[in-house]
Amino acid sequence: MGSDTRTLDVVGIGNAIVDVLVTSDDAFLEAHGLSKGGMSLVNAEQAQQLYAAAGPGLETSGGSAANTLAGLAQLGGRAGFIGRVRDDQLGAIFSHDIRSVGARFETPAALDGPATARCLILVTPDAQRTMCTYLGASVDLDPDDLDLYLVRQAGLLYLEGYLWDGEAAKRAFLAAAEVMRSAGGQVALSLSDAFCVERHRDSFLELVDGHVDVLFANEAEITALYRCNDFEAAIEQVKGRCSIAVLTRGALGSVVIGEGRVHHIPPYVLGPLVDTTGAGDLYAAGFLWGLCRGEPLERCGQLGSLCAGQVITQLGPRPRVSLPDLVTKHLG
Amino acid sequence: MGSDTRTLDVVGIGNAIVDVLVTSDDAFLEAHGLSKGGMSLVNAEQAQQLYAAAGPGLETSGGSAANTLAGLAQLGGRAGFIGRVRDDQLGAIFSHDIRSVGARFETPAALDGPATARCLILVTPDAQRTMCTYLGASVDLDPDDLDLYLVRQAGLLYLEGYLWDGEAAKRAFLAAAEVMRSAGGQVALSLSDAFCVERHRDSFLELVDGHVDVLFANEAEITALYRCNDFEAAIEQVKGRCSIAVLTRGALGSVVIGEGRVHHIPPYVLGPLVDTTGAGDLYAAGFLWGLCRGEPLERCGQLGSLCAGQVITQLGPRPRVSLPDLVTKHLG
Repeated sequence: MGSDTRTLDVVGIGNAIVDVLVTSDDAFLEAHGLSKGGMSLVNAEQAQQLYAAAGPGLETSGGSAANTLAGLAQLGGRAGFIGRVRDDQLGAIFSHDIRSVGARFETPAALDGPATARCLILVTPDAQRTMCTYLGASVDLDPDDLDLYLVRQAGLLYLEGYLWDGEAAKRAFLAAAEVMRSAGGQVALSLSDAFCVERHRDSFLELVDGHVDVLFANEAEITALYRCNDFEAAIEQVKGRCSIAVLTRGALGSVVIGEGRVHHIPPYVLGPLVDTTGAGDLYAAGFLWGLCRGEPLERCGQLGSLCAGQVITQLGPRPRVSLPDLVTKHLG
Repeated sequence: MGSDTRTLDVVGIGNAIVDVLVTSDDAFLEAHGLSKGGMSLVNAEQAQQLYAAAGPGLETSGGSAANTLAGLAQLGGRAGFIGRVRDDQLGAIFSHDIRSVGARFETPAALDGPATARCLILVTPDAQRTMCTYLGASVDLDPDDLDLYLVRQAGLLYLEGYLWDGEAAKRAFLAAAEVMRSAGGQVALSLSDAFCVERHRDSFLELVDGHVDVLFANEAEITALYRCNDFEAAIEQVKGRCSIAVLTRGALGSVVIGEGRVHHIPPYVLGPLVDTTGAGDLYAAGFLWGLCRGEPLERCGQLGSLCAGQVITQLGPRPRVSLPDLVTKHLG
């Protein structure tokens, strides 16, 4: 299919998750053996136990790639998402939220099996988020029911590293990447989480070398991938391995590597820091929005940095302000 | 049962509801024929249609009396809540949230029938909230399964006017009030909503005259109840009809009438106004917390005003800060 007949800018594949945001503290993390800032996988029973021990929650649609595609749609991009929910109340919430911002989401809900995925997100007073994910129905996504039609509609395929935690989801991911590349499109990957990188390091190294055009990673993830001691060494490692590498460093800003140049992008401070949930996801949303409009890489980075700067001033990973208005105000 | 053997300060009966908060605008309200600031009842089909048309949501436990009892528990009060959810995911969220702040909630979930109640709350840029409630399982509460044991544990019974919208729930309410009064306890009523007052005016007039010790109402509700043209006339009407009347006026503060006096309580401005959802509910929480500790009425009003002042600076009706810390900071 030629690029002129494509109806989507970006299609994403990821875990379809509803977040349960809970205000928490370091003592709770320690008591439950949770690593601050990380993502732990939990089974249904562990999820239930942690939830029972946690304070009152605020529920919102989440999922890393889903947050990115929802953000892209909010910016005005043509976005599609592929992921699996159950036909339950949380699945209906997830489906509503991503469609209501204009993204296409057509993966049929599972009619049996585990419930829709939930992620308990413990937000500490330092605005860090620590995640405990029950993957539930989202790991049931497999190549057989992957919507390759939707993949072929897009010029870029966006994948989250978390998919590697489910064997079927990983195969679905690789099948989609194959389809995208043979259609002449690009593949982008987010490494998702340093612990996730540790779990699947060999797979990711191979993938980044040969199959990924745009790589998103934060400092912890990229240094885990290349087993570097510092960020500068990681930059040297990643150069030339993919067309574009986007490396984020929280309050230190971000670095965009591509077209033979290294761009240093400052962070945007738009208000008090509330919750870092979704920062990386919204950076990717802003960056990809610029990229699919053919903007220079430096401006793509600024768009990403701005969207990340907004989402960390609120609770939860889906911006509740107009992103186009934000862009107009800060970037013209 | 003597007051010395009571294990609860306040028990509340109300609709057990999960709120879906959506950022909206006046055009949406007009297009769907919704009265700004009010609460409309919708059936399952209407609820689905409105939700499909609305933007992405943020889910949180709600319900007027439930918000009040959760707030009372957060303040350190001994709180119980009676209301009916279904055994579904939203019901589990409601149950978790109210128990996790320390309130007792033991009403068994319905095993069949309608789903857990949902309220679509459209928050406009002026911070007003407009509510569309699907009562679902909450109207299945009836006298047969009312937990009168829990009612007998408390010194004060708190009821929301919204219960009048369900015939069985209304009967449950009256049965509980009878039990409470014969046990020597007090009965408090919130009028809930001006439209609700219009629907059930005769019932409410009779109730306030003979069966209510503490009445909570906002300006629109109390003027609707007594068909007064202005607030001062309503104050004159309500004097002497119940021991204590608490009348709230938003940014104009509130008035506490009781023990032969009228106290004018200023509002607390704790930050930018974000969402008025739960303002009246949290006022009642703070007021009842003072009342059950034997505080003077003026201070009860200040406690209510402070809790209401906090909840309107955030999205949703359940405070996400420590209310005891707030009280210590502002009221010593």
